[in-house]
Amino acid sequence: MIALSKNKAKFIKSLHIKKYRKQEQLFLVEGTKSVLELLNANYQVIMLLVSQKFWHQHQNVISSANIQEIFEVSPAQLSSVSTFKQNQDVLAVAKMPDQKKIKPAAGEWWLALDNIQDPGNLGTIIRTADWYGITNIIASMETAELYNPKVIHATMGSFIRVNIAYYELNEVIKSTPLNVFGAYLDGVNIHTYEFDEASGGIFLVGNEAKGISADLEQFVSVKLSIPRFGQAESLNAGIATAVILDNLRKYS
Amino acid sequence: MIALSKNKAKFIKSLHIKKYRKQEQLFLVEGTKSVLELLNANYQVIMLLVSQKFWHQHQNVISSANIQEIFEVSPAQLSSVSTFKQNQDVLAVAKMPDQKKIKPAAGEWWLALDNIQDPGNLGTIIRTADWYGITNIIASMETAELYNPKVIHATMGSFIRVNIAYYELNEVIKSTPLNVFGAYLDGVNIHTYEFDEASGGIFLVGNEAKGISADLEQFVSVKLSIPRFGQAESLNAGIATAVILDNLRKYS
Repeated sequence: MIALSKNKAKFIKSLHIKKYRKQEQLFLVEGTKSVLELLNANYQVIMLLVSQKFWHQHQNVISSANIQEIFEVSPAQLSSVSTFKQNQDVLAVAKMPDQKKIKPAAGEWWLALDNIQDPGNLGTIIRTADWYGITNIIASMETAELYNPKVIHATMGSFIRVNIAYYELNEVIKSTPLNVFGAYLDGVNIHTYEFDEASGGIFLVGNEAKGISADLEQFVSVKLSIPRFGQAESLNAGIATAVILDNLRKYS
Repeated sequence: MIALSKNKAKFIKSLHIKKYRKQEQLFLVEGTKSVLELLNANYQVIMLLVSQKFWHQHQNVISSANIQEIFEVSPAQLSSVSTFKQNQDVLAVAKMPDQKKIKPAAGEWWLALDNIQDPGNLGTIIRTADWYGITNIIASMETAELYNPKVIHATMGSFIRVNIAYYELNEVIKSTPLNVFGAYLDGVNIHTYEFDEASGGIFLVGNEAKGISADLEQFVSVKLSIPRFGQAESLNAGIATAVILDNLRKYS
């Protein structure tokens, strides 16, 4: 292991910014849980910054992973290049994988994100999709960036198992043979709606403030509603997605 | 209406910080939706900063609310005292209400928050509780502060309708006659569990990283599980709470 030069520290910090992530096709993964999942998966890791403690505890995982350069750093050094306020353990710089599958096939369940803006929401939606066995997500071009460190962190490692493709959502939605589901205030009660799990379908998740866009609404084949028992006007986009997926799986 | 002095702007900015909120017993409410809900409720508003547009659109609401001082400000002035990057419309300084009810009674459904740390999670949980008709929450003393502007924003106005009391959670949980429910990986399947809605109960929501604390676990009378169909290790605390509340209400 070698020491981290000032230039390399600067390079890592440049990856806090979207423009440089895009240019370099690299992104940051921070914290023990996420980095361990990364190392166990098939990602190309350009740099790994480890504390002495992490190095000693996880030598086996490190030695069997695909890593170009490893640096031993102090907790202070780690925090200074991390987007976390305090990062005591580990940070990886990984290569973005190629664009994923974008076409939903019969029998598959997909999420389609129509301009989800909040990084925490996007990350939580990916984590929730992973929990409910939804492994494909298509996101509109305006959706928050997957490789934003806040998104990666909120997925808690699920970005590795869920394919997320950015594409013209209209193109996909208007030509799909699958049912397209959307959540509305006046749709069919999701507690009694019987999903045909074998057919598959696409859940359209609307923007946090504006909901499902007018362009896409015409393609919604089933309007669903989450029954309300109190007085909040709406649910958070990630929460609504989770409740719908839980109801999809309720008879499984 | 009068112009905002430098001193008052400084005072408002001091309320970005917990210490000064506590000292003054005041907090900020920002953005149109939240402030309109505040003005329609019975809160004491010390200062209201409005854009010309907000003033013209909402004069009726403003004139019937309990407001000490009103200032007309430019969008730039508003943004400079707001915690939002851009606040074009309105900001209120409101008085914290007195401590709320802390003792769950038979037949009521409560949430009990065991050290929820993320302000976004706390706000989302309050909003979700409001949607599902849960109007009482008790939070451990270590839980994130309700009056953190990020929490208030994430509630989308629901902080007005949901009572949140901070108290020694142990004291309440160990003496309650109600069933105490907690989410675990190896509990009873929530899709088939039949809640007795009329009896009431307390849902204990564990810390984001550590789950339900050992001190409290002994008082959990029903261990529930949200079935998993994929590979994520866990769900976000707010997501798990929503899925449980949705299942509580599924036969209503």
